[in-house]
Amino acid sequence: MFENSDRTELAALGEFGLIDHLAQHFPTKLPSSLLGIGDDAALVKLGTKVMAISTDMMIEGVHFDLAYTPLKHLGYKAVTSNLSDICAMNGLPTQITVSIAFSNRFSLEAIEELYEGIRLACEKYEIDLVGGDTSSTRSGLVISVTAVGEVSPKKITKRSGAKPGDLLVLSGDIGGAYMGLQILEREKRVFLEHNQMQPDLEPYDYIVARQLKPEARLDVVRMLEELAIVPTSMIDVSDGVASEIHHLGKASGVGFEIYEEKIPLDQQTLDTALGFNLNPSVAALNGGEDYELLFTVDQKHYDKIKNHLDLTIIGHATDSVGSYLLNTRAGNSFEIQAQGWNHLKENQ
Amino acid sequence: MFENSDRTELAALGEFGLIDHLAQHFPTKLPSSLLGIGDDAALVKLGTKVMAISTDMMIEGVHFDLAYTPLKHLGYKAVTSNLSDICAMNGLPTQITVSIAFSNRFSLEAIEELYEGIRLACEKYEIDLVGGDTSSTRSGLVISVTAVGEVSPKKITKRSGAKPGDLLVLSGDIGGAYMGLQILEREKRVFLEHNQMQPDLEPYDYIVARQLKPEARLDVVRMLEELAIVPTSMIDVSDGVASEIHHLGKASGVGFEIYEEKIPLDQQTLDTALGFNLNPSVAALNGGEDYELLFTVDQKHYDKIKNHLDLTIIGHATDSVGSYLLNTRAGNSFEIQAQGWNHLKENQ
Repeated sequence: MFENSDRTELAALGEFGLIDHLAQHFPTKLPSSLLGIGDDAALVKLGTKVMAISTDMMIEGVHFDLAYTPLKHLGYKAVTSNLSDICAMNGLPTQITVSIAFSNRFSLEAIEELYEGIRLACEKYEIDLVGGDTSSTRSGLVISVTAVGEVSPKKITKRSGAKPGDLLVLSGDIGGAYMGLQILEREKRVFLEHNQMQPDLEPYDYIVARQLKPEARLDVVRMLEELAIVPTSMIDVSDGVASEIHHLGKASGVGFEIYEEKIPLDQQTLDTALGFNLNPSVAALNGGEDYELLFTVDQKHYDKIKNHLDLTIIGHATDSVGSYLLNTRAGNSFEIQAQGWNHLKENQ
Repeated sequence: MFENSDRTELAALGEFGLIDHLAQHFPTKLPSSLLGIGDDAALVKLGTKVMAISTDMMIEGVHFDLAYTPLKHLGYKAVTSNLSDICAMNGLPTQITVSIAFSNRFSLEAIEELYEGIRLACEKYEIDLVGGDTSSTRSGLVISVTAVGEVSPKKITKRSGAKPGDLLVLSGDIGGAYMGLQILEREKRVFLEHNQMQPDLEPYDYIVARQLKPEARLDVVRMLEELAIVPTSMIDVSDGVASEIHHLGKASGVGFEIYEEKIPLDQQTLDTALGFNLNPSVAALNGGEDYELLFTVDQKHYDKIKNHLDLTIIGHATDSVGSYLLNTRAGNSFEIQAQGWNHLKENQ
């Protein structure tokens, strides 16, 4: 299957490149495998029902820094980030499994803290932890979560399916998790350099919470049901909207045009970005881990969404395949690059 | 939920102790969660169907040593060990997800080798890889596999359910994977100490394959179907029969008595154990990773099993709860200790 025996560095390929490269050798064969690699979750048919399955692994030093991440929050986030993937298929999560591995640096009390966060997420989202695995590492903490959920067959929403003219809609606001991370990284440096001075994070409470304790938008899936809207395509914002619109565009065979003035920003996100001398729109589009839902809907649903408090129409799909345009407040147009989190590049 | 704030070392608790400790805080609440933590796989109801879900994480330096584990075999084993858990519920696996994380020590070609093993397992067992995750680590390789499969509601077989008098049945032979590991560890030491002399593993081909490339007994699940046998309890032999009978006994509220002369050993396993000055029966009962199925059946099925070439009746369940007796060839009786793999203890 793989004939080249030279050494190719993986950094050159990147995470998405590697997944694409590997996925070509794994076409699905069973009739029950409705959707395989390449979307937010896989879809498996069982009788007349459809189950969505999503999995993610988080590695200490790569996905999280325990210097500023409380273990309880980490457990919570490990769950919600996976639930978010089930929501992105327009499904509702029901069960999770959690595998962890850790070194002898961690005490029982530390592991209990982590599981307390997992328990809180299970309670909040009314899902059950039904299995998992625990083992040790030579160093560091690894968490792998798999979430399953049910998707109504008529409401399955993939990344593909967007049509030119469809409205591009975003739940909540974006960029907060990224700016929260900037604050935490800055305060960690200050803490280490200045006699371990305790930081005051209170002015940044919203964005720090967005980073450390993100929520999954099950409420948006339920809201779409109430509004009688089945999106034509959907993805969750884990790598940043700039990256996600490329995924939607590539899978659907469309382009996108978005409007800077429409990008929903919280005031704290805006202020903090300016404080860091960052363009708030650029930070918001490229910052990941907001776990909002980004989806396309037919224009006929415009009236249902236009004044919705938690949904924002930020642009529309176009027939310019491969073109992702940002129309700025100043009246210019820029091509949006996909600068999402690349865990392979960042850490090698 | 957890009130003690002192530091408790996890080694004292062990892996099973930790799982029991954590599981008490996660009772299942949804009607669809038919079975949660504490068996080989979780069971989730979807419509009229039942899905089994199992997950395992393998960590370099803890679960495998790349000095003697080819990546292709590692990929294969990561899959089959999970499929085995679905079989242990009397189910047949259908889909898997695979998450991997690795350092920049690994080239694209190395990762391709790993996935080639995964692909071979998918092909052999006719299952689909439908999703996963790739990311990086600071050092080492981590693989997390989740398998799902279907269990016929009438054939669900848990660890609980064994009744006193039930026959205790084992598929295949045991101890091979453990003795194969001893050979590989010995040859690694020789290789490192004596000018990197290449080992001759040919005389140990069967047991080395048992260790490096174990199979999952989907065929036994199908065979039970053909024999019209639904076991009263079942578990897969991942930690060693000595450990597994404790799990079955504890879950079912029974004891077990097994007969040394009945323990199925391959000639290579026997010879190699003797070469290492080990009691072959003790090695076979305590060695893990054979991935055979250990199950109990009602005595009425005795005639179907007694002369079966691939199934061996090694003992029976008793009403002496908590008692696990080995009746030796010499006519003595010993209490069997659960000495299974304890990844937490071994590595701290």
